[in-house]
Amino acid sequence: MTEQQHPYYPRDLELPGFVPGTWSRAEIFGIFGTALALVVLISWNLSGKFKHLTQLDRRIICWWAVTGAIHFLQEGAFVVSPKFYASTTNDYFSEGWKEYSKADSRYASRDPCIVSIEAVTAFVEGPLCFVIIYALVTLKPYRHILQFAVALGQVYGTIIYFGTSYLEGFKHSDPGFLYFWLYFVAMNGIWILIPGLIIIRTWNASVAVVGHIATSTNETKSKKRR
Amino acid sequence: MTEQQHPYYPRDLELPGFVPGTWSRAEIFGIFGTALALVVLISWNLSGKFKHLTQLDRRIICWWAVTGAIHFLQEGAFVVSPKFYASTTNDYFSEGWKEYSKADSRYASRDPCIVSIEAVTAFVEGPLCFVIIYALVTLKPYRHILQFAVALGQVYGTIIYFGTSYLEGFKHSDPGFLYFWLYFVAMNGIWILIPGLIIIRTWNASVAVVGHIATSTNETKSKKRR
Repeated sequence: MTEQQHPYYPRDLELPGFVPGTWSRAEIFGIFGTALALVVLISWNLSGKFKHLTQLDRRIICWWAVTGAIHFLQEGAFVVSPKFYASTTNDYFSEGWKEYSKADSRYASRDPCIVSIEAVTAFVEGPLCFVIIYALVTLKPYRHILQFAVALGQVYGTIIYFGTSYLEGFKHSDPGFLYFWLYFVAMNGIWILIPGLIIIRTWNASVAVVGHIATSTNETKSKKRR
Repeated sequence: MTEQQHPYYPRDLELPGFVPGTWSRAEIFGIFGTALALVVLISWNLSGKFKHLTQLDRRIICWWAVTGAIHFLQEGAFVVSPKFYASTTNDYFSEGWKEYSKADSRYASRDPCIVSIEAVTAFVEGPLCFVIIYALVTLKPYRHILQFAVALGQVYGTIIYFGTSYLEGFKHSDPGFLYFWLYFVAMNGIWILIPGLIIIRTWNASVAVVGHIATSTNETKSKKRR
C-alpha cells in the first residue's frame, strides 16, 4: 500500500488515509473572499434601513456577520468533519482545511484543545454573533454585554490557541512566510485585534452607564436633601 | 537505575525522574482548607467595615478572595514549576500537584493546553480577582463588567478543560470515585457553578442599567415633546 505523503509539519506526523487537496489556493480563497464580500454587502445594505444606526454601528454589524459566518460555517464544518484530511469529495470545506492545516497540522491531527476551542467558537459564539446583530438593530439593553462576552471568548480562545502553539515550539506550522506569518499569525491575530477593540468599546459603554446612574442617583439624593 | 513507579493515568505515561509525594491527603487538604478558611475570615471581617456592602456583596467578596488566592498561588505555583513531579523539596505546592495529578496527569505531563489555560488563570484572572474586590468596596463603575469578564474567563477555561478531557476519553484521570468525581468533576465544577451565578448577576445588572438609561432618556424626550 502506498501512503500519500502529506505536506504538514511536523514531517513525521502520521495521518493514515491522507488524500491531497486538489483545489488551488486561488480557488479556495476566491470562494472564501467572495462569500465574505457578499456577507458584508448584504449586512451593509440591510443595516442601512435602520436610521438609528451610525456608520460605525453598521461596520460593527458587518464584522459580526462575517465572524459569525466564519465561526458557524467554516469552523463548524471542521468540528463535525474529523476526517477531512482523508476526504475525496473535493468540497470547499475539506479543501480549505487541508490548506489551512499547513499552517497548523493540529487541525488534521484533531488536537483535543483545538477541537474544544473550535466547538465553543462554532456552536456557541457563532450563533451568538447573529443574536448580537439582532440586539444592535433592535437596541436591546443586552447589546453591549453580549458583544463584550463573545469578543472576550474570541480573545480567550485565540490566546490559548497561540499559547499552546508557542509551548510546543510552533512545531505544527510550516515555517514558510505564507503559512506561518500570513495564515497562522495574521489571520488569527485578527481575532485578537477586532474583538479587542470591541471589548474596549463595550467596556467603556458599560462603565459609562453605571457611572451615569450613580451620578443621577446622587443628584436625586442631593435634591431630596435640599 | 530503578525508576520510581508513578500512580498516574494512563499507566504507561512516562515521567522520568518522578519522585512520589510524601504528604498524606489529610496534610495537603488540611493546609489548603485552613488557608482558605483564613482568607474567608479575613475577607468577611474586613468587608464588614464598609457599611454600603450587603451580606451578599460580602459573600461575593469572600469568593473573589478565595478564587483569587487559588488562582495566583496554587495555580501560579504549577505554571512556574514544570518539574514539580520530580521535586524532592516536600513543599506544599509540589505535594498538592503530585496529589491532584492523580485526577489529571496532564498537570504532571505538562499538557500545553493545561499550561496555557492555567497561565491565563493564574496571572491574568488571579490578580484581577483582587481588583474586583477593590472595585466592589469602592463602588467603581467597572465593578459589574470586570466581574463578568473574569467569571466568563473562568467558565470558558473550565469548559475547555472538561472538553479536552472528554475528547481524550478521560484517560488522564484515575477512575476512582475520589479522584474522578470529587477532585476532577466536583472541584472543577465549582468554577462553572459560582462564576455562572456571577455571570447571571452581572449580566442582569448591565441590562438593567442600560434599560434604565434608555427609559429615562425616552422620558426626557417625551417631556420635551409635551
